[in-house]
Formats: sequence, C-alpha cells, structure tokens
Amino acid sequence: MREQLAQLKENIKSEVHQWLTDHQEEGINLLQSLVQADSTQGNEAEAQQIVIDTLNELGLDVDRWDPDGESLSKHPYFASSRDNFNGSPNVVGVQKGTGDGRSIIFNGHIDVVPAGDREQWDFDPYSGKVVDGKMYGRGVTDMKGGNVAMLLAIKALQNIGIQLKGDVIFQSVVEEESGGSGTLAAVLKGYKADAAIIPEPTNMKVFPKQQGSMWFRVHVKGRSAHGGTRYQGVSAIEKSLAVVDHIRQLEKKRNDRISDPLYQNIPIPIPINVGKIEGGDWPSSVADLVKIEGRMGISPEETMENAKAEMEEWLEKLKEVNPWFEESPVRLEWFGARWLPGSIDLEHKLMNTLVSTYRDVLDEEPIVEASPWGTDGGLLTEVGSTPSLVFGPGVTGMAHFPNEYIELDKVFEVAEIMALTLVDWCGIEES
Amino acid sequence: MREQLAQLKENIKSEVHQWLTDHQEEGINLLQSLVQADSTQGNEAEAQQIVIDTLNELGLDVDRWDPDGESLSKHPYFASSRDNFNGSPNVVGVQKGTGDGRSIIFNGHIDVVPAGDREQWDFDPYSGKVVDGKMYGRGVTDMKGGNVAMLLAIKALQNIGIQLKGDVIFQSVVEEESGGSGTLAAVLKGYKADAAIIPEPTNMKVFPKQQGSMWFRVHVKGRSAHGGTRYQGVSAIEKSLAVVDHIRQLEKKRNDRISDPLYQNIPIPIPINVGKIEGGDWPSSVADLVKIEGRMGISPEETMENAKAEMEEWLEKLKEVNPWFEESPVRLEWFGARWLPGSIDLEHKLMNTLVSTYRDVLDEEPIVEASPWGTDGGLLTEVGSTPSLVFGPGVTGMAHFPNEYIELDKVFEVAEIMALTLVDWCGIEES
Repeated sequence: MREQLAQLKENIKSEVHQWLTDHQEEGINLLQSLVQADSTQGNEAEAQQIVIDTLNELGLDVDRWDPDGESLSKHPYFASSRDNFNGSPNVVGVQKGTGDGRSIIFNGHIDVVPAGDREQWDFDPYSGKVVDGKMYGRGVTDMKGGNVAMLLAIKALQNIGIQLKGDVIFQSVVEEESGGSGTLAAVLKGYKADAAIIPEPTNMKVFPKQQGSMWFRVHVKGRSAHGGTRYQGVSAIEKSLAVVDHIRQLEKKRNDRISDPLYQNIPIPIPINVGKIEGGDWPSSVADLVKIEGRMGISPEETMENAKAEMEEWLEKLKEVNPWFEESPVRLEWFGARWLPGSIDLEHKLMNTLVSTYRDVLDEEPIVEASPWGTDGGLLTEVGSTPSLVFGPGVTGMAHFPNEYIELDKVFEVAEIMALTLVDWCGIEES
Repeated sequence: MREQLAQLKENIKSEVHQWLTDHQEEGINLLQSLVQADSTQGNEAEAQQIVIDTLNELGLDVDRWDPDGESLSKHPYFASSRDNFNGSPNVVGVQKGTGDGRSIIFNGHIDVVPAGDREQWDFDPYSGKVVDGKMYGRGVTDMKGGNVAMLLAIKALQNIGIQLKGDVIFQSVVEEESGGSGTLAAVLKGYKADAAIIPEPTNMKVFPKQQGSMWFRVHVKGRSAHGGTRYQGVSAIEKSLAVVDHIRQLEKKRNDRISDPLYQNIPIPIPINVGKIEGGDWPSSVADLVKIEGRMGISPEETMENAKAEMEEWLEKLKEVNPWFEESPVRLEWFGARWLPGSIDLEHKLMNTLVSTYRDVLDEEPIVEASPWGTDGGLLTEVGSTPSLVFGPGVTGMAHFPNEYIELDKVFEVAEIMALTLVDWCGIEES
C-alpha cells in the first residue's frame, strides 16, 4: 500500500513535470500578458480580467467584487491611502474539492508599485521582455510570477486528471502594496481555509514567519534663531541626530532578544529603518522642526500594540539622554502603511509537506527563514485564522527596483512544487 | 579756540536734540509710511518713492535707477536669486558739501524679508502699529528704522542751519536680503566715499567688523535597499549625521583660532549653521541621498576663497572618518546668497568720532563688537574701497521674526548720534 502510494506520487510528479515542460510557452505568455497590464494602484481591472478569464477556463467559481471602502475602513487592521476601491476589483476563484480534504488558500496580489524613473530601466517596464531566460517588468517578480506559478499548478493537476479532495481558493487581491485591504476584504467576505501559501518573491526560500511592520513619524522640535547667532537657538537637526541614534539603540535592544533560529542568518531580524528626514527651511536659520519617518519591523512573536508601546516608552526616555527633550518632547505618529506579522507553526503539516516536496523536486534542502518584510499573511493568520507561509519564485532584491526580473525556470519549479504540495495537502481521489 | 569749538558743538548738540524732540511725530509718520509700503523682493518701488519724495524735500540730488542685471551678474561678487531688477529701483541722494570735508555714505536697504506666517503676528505686519513706544511691522527694525534715523540726521542739521563741508551720500538700496546686488550696483555706478555707516539693527552696538557668510549644500550619498533588509544598504541619513558632526568640528577648529577681542563675548564668533536637511523618499526604504544646506560664517580676517577651500579640504577628510566616503565622496556646492565680510580699522577716525559722539549723547560707553552676520558693508569695503561700520537702532533678535518691532526712542537717539557724527566727520562751515 505504502509502496503503491509512493509509485502513484512518483507518477504524478513525472506527469506534472512533463505537462509543465510542454506548456512553458503558455505559462510565459500568461505572465507576459499580466506584466503588460499595468496594475498600479487604481489600475488593477485589466490584469484582473486576465485572471478571471484564466479562472473561467479552469472552471473555477469566480467571485469578482470591488472592496467596500466604507465598511473596510472601520476595521482595526485597515491601512490604506484610500477608502474607495471602485474599479479595483478583488478576484477569487474556488475549485471545490470532492470532500474530506484539507482546504488551501493560494493568495497573490495583483497590484504593483509604480515603475519609478523610466530612465533607470533597460526595457519598457510594461513590456515583459524576455532575455536569457529572464522576464523583465514591473511586478514580474512581485508577484505576478508567483501568481502564474499557482495557476499553472492548478491547471497541471486538472490536465493530468487529478481530482483534489480539499478546496483550492485562488485569490488575486488588490492593495497589498498599500497595507493589505484586498486580502482584508477577502477574509471579511468569509474566505478562510486550513492553511495558505503566498508566493511572494522569496528567492525560493520558505518563510514560515513573516515580519510585520508599521510606519512612524517623529516630530523633533528646536528653537529658531539666525544662523549667525546659532547659539541662541536649538537646532532641531542636531536634536534629530540624537533621536536617530536613540532609535538605533531601540533596534539593538529589540533584536538582541530575538533567539529564534529562523533569524540566525539575518544580521538584523527586525530592523527599524529611518528612511526619510526633512527639516529646517532656510540655510541661515536654526531649524525649529525636523520630521523623520521610518518603518519599524514587528516580530511574529509580538503584537503591533506591544511594539508601538515599546517605541513610545523608548522615546519618552529621550529626556534622560538630553534635557532638551524634557522641555520639548518629540511627538510620535503612526501613519500610512502597516503589515501584520504572520506565521505558521514550524511543525504544521503544510510546512512538512512543502519542505519535503521541495526536497523531492529540486533534490536539495530548502532554506527556511523568517521573512524580512510583511505580507498579507499577517491578515490571513490574524484576522482570517488561516496559518500562512510564504514561498515564491521571485527575486527578493529586485522587488520595487528598476529592471525587476524573474528567472522563468523558477516559476515552473515553484509551479511543480505547489502542484505536488496540493496533492499531499488536499488529498486526491484515487478513482 | 578749543573752548569756542567745544561750545559750538555743545550748541549744535542741544539744537539737534531739540529739533528731533520737536519732530518726533514727523519721524514716526515717515517710518510708518515706509513700513506700510511692503517692499519685499520685487515690490520695492512704492517704498522707494517715499524715499525719493523725502530726498527731494531735503534738496538732495536724486539718482533712481533699476540695476542692470545683465552686467551685474557678470561680477564675481554678484549673488542673487534673480538677474532682472526691472521695477526694483535703487535710490541715491547726494548732498554736496561746501568742499574740503570728508565724505560719507549712509547706506540702508529698503528690501524686507517676507512676513511669513501671519498667524504668528499680533498685528498686520504692514500696519506699522505703535504700542507702548514700539512700532511693529516687517522691516521696521531691519532696517527702515535705521534709514529714517539717517534721514532725520540730515534733516535736523539742515534745519538748524548747519552746512557740511564733506558730501553725504544717502543710499536706499534693494536686494540686501538676497546677497547685496543693490549695493553692488551703487558701488559699480561709482558711489564711493571716505567711509560709510550702515544702520542695520545692532541694538545700538557698534560693529567695526562684519562677519561674511556663504551658503553651502552638501550631497550625501547612500545605497538604497528595502527597510526590512536595511543592512544590505547604506543609509544616507546615518552618513549625513557623520557629515553634520564633521562640519561641527570644522566650526570648532575655525573658531578656536579667533583671538580678536571684538569676539570675546560671542560664544561662537563665526558659526557654521546647518539649517536644512532633506533626504530619503520612502519610510521603508534605505535613503540613498540626503542634502544638507547651511551657512558658513566668514571672518573679516579671511577671504571667502580661503574659507571655501578650507571647507572643501575638510570634507575631503571625511574618508578618514569613515571609509564609505572614500567610495562615495560627498559633493559640496556653494549656492544662493553670499555676504562679503567687511571691516573698518578700530582706530579709524570715523570709529573714534562715532564712539565719542555716542558717549556724549547717551552718557555711556557703546559696546563695540564684531557682527554675527553679513551686511552690505563687505561690498562697500571690498569692492567700493569704502571702510564701513554698522550701527543702528533696530532690535537684532527681532529681524526676520514675527512681531518685528523697534523702540522708537532708539531711532531718535541714533539720529542724534549720526547728526553729530556728520558734524565731526564731514566738518562744518563756520560762517
């Protein structure tokens, strides 16, 4: 019996591999058409239509809706720069299982960040040009390549005649890049499953834990004076240096207490990045206000509320560093985007399945780490009670950069791993 | 003979004092009308017309002209945000002396800095409202109050029948707040004298030396990365902190070598003020560029060229502080406004005259210091070969601030001191 099962799996693996090999051109064309459909915030409809057409071909039950900003924006985990999503549809396709299997969510976002300075691109960012086995374009790695891998996995199994017992819920969501309102809307609409895979660009690493993050802004006050008598004022620029340094110490403190082996190869597991600084309005005046903005990494082991409180308390201590902050305390704001941390148990069945499938397909051990950034996995885990892991074919370092690319081979490798993971996770009708 | 002269001067002093006392209302009205004429950059014509009318009443030879931007801008000491001065007239009035006396320039600027945030003003900044002996308004202290003191000095002497031997050249110039193109134009038109007084707001201190200044901008590079993996990038914000610190050390070095007793009560004689900082464009990205802007004070004992070279060499040394700057050196720019340092010999006859007149009128020793900021005195000294000192009734600390005001009493005290200084300096016909 065990031997028969092993043989069956070996056969499926071989057939999936063959089907994917035979359908490379189809996969590449689908990815290219998705990249060519610019799906920056507010422009997602064209790319979503391509997804809908593909899901219809696959015979999935397709649900397309514009998230309702009014009700969403009341949710405590809502974070977006807009509260009207008209014309920015979410798409979900459900492949019902035959019953008694584990269900899975395949979650990918369709939105892409802006292409930025076109001068820095070697090709049109919406061309999907293929050179030496790499496809170039905005969003190809983050994360349309991952989305195509999921669709190919479903299609490969269908084509070789596999029927899954558990449901497969394919989600193509909007707004991931702006805080996850698309996934939040899908969760609130009731889409949940026994587990989820999100093929964000991980360089084929497996991320059972995803770092969350929050944006903050610190207002640092000074007292103005003429630059020629600068000693009569208090420079908010100099004070902001002390604040940046103080924040750096908090980062150290927070990271020193992280002992999770998933972070052992990561120099700073949960960084606090000060990404923006602006202050003063005249070269020969003493600056009386500087604003610094940054991103605070949130460990999967803590809540956002605790992390916020820790930052607030830490900034209170500035007055011990320098009496100026007693007189003029800094003001801390939490603003803009926010990603909940997410995780799946390392011993979770889906982890075991994915890792062993990876090993079978690629004949090597996958790297298992904690992610350095947030994904929609936090919302799926926290709000949707769906344990989530992140694993995808894209190149981590190219996300959001000019000349973003993906190695096409990886898309097909991930498709194969996902198809075989579905077989193990959802179970198959052996008829 | 000496006794007679002393008696004559005593009489003049008493008559000047009486005349000024009797004409306070006239002086206040003139100042108020000048304040009410908003003379921010580009809008100087209305206020200049008031000056012209006053000079005409006094019977001076009036010269009014719009500086020629095209030829001015070729001058090595030209510094302005514009090169077209049409509609921004300079005004010079000359009172020819009877001969054989020393000539003097009375130089004041008519331009004022913008009023800024009106919310921070208790009164309309162009009202010239008088409360408790103080007049409020933009430019009242910097430096229309000083200009009125000069006009009153000339008028008082005329009215009590004094004829001066030396020429008095009254200048009402544009553009001082933006680098001195108005005074430069007057110098280049040939207006020079044996010495000059500039009644900028000194709190009635006498400034025989005026600090110069230059604006600079330093571009500090980093290398971008995602904030979640910030250790893969190099933060231009962190590097800019090192640059600010490095500049602070240069300031110390430059000030440590200043031994001039005129600076003995000044905490930092020639400050380097970092007034503006801006960099990074996304909270969760590592900043790859920060720009800092500042103002470098220039001692009257050094040239701007030497000061520039010192800053340039100092910033080169950054690579010894941190190897990053070897790979990515900062870029230094000199931009925007620039004020030449200026000075007059401490033993110059005009200094002696002014100091002893001050003592006679106010019955106390004047404070003699070096100025913490530049004036047009640098251009008069360097380009016009006219030794210049700065002495005026305005409140130093209120210049450029909301609720700028002047104590009206001081305007009349300075007018009296200036009138008696003219008597001594230019000499009088004793007929």
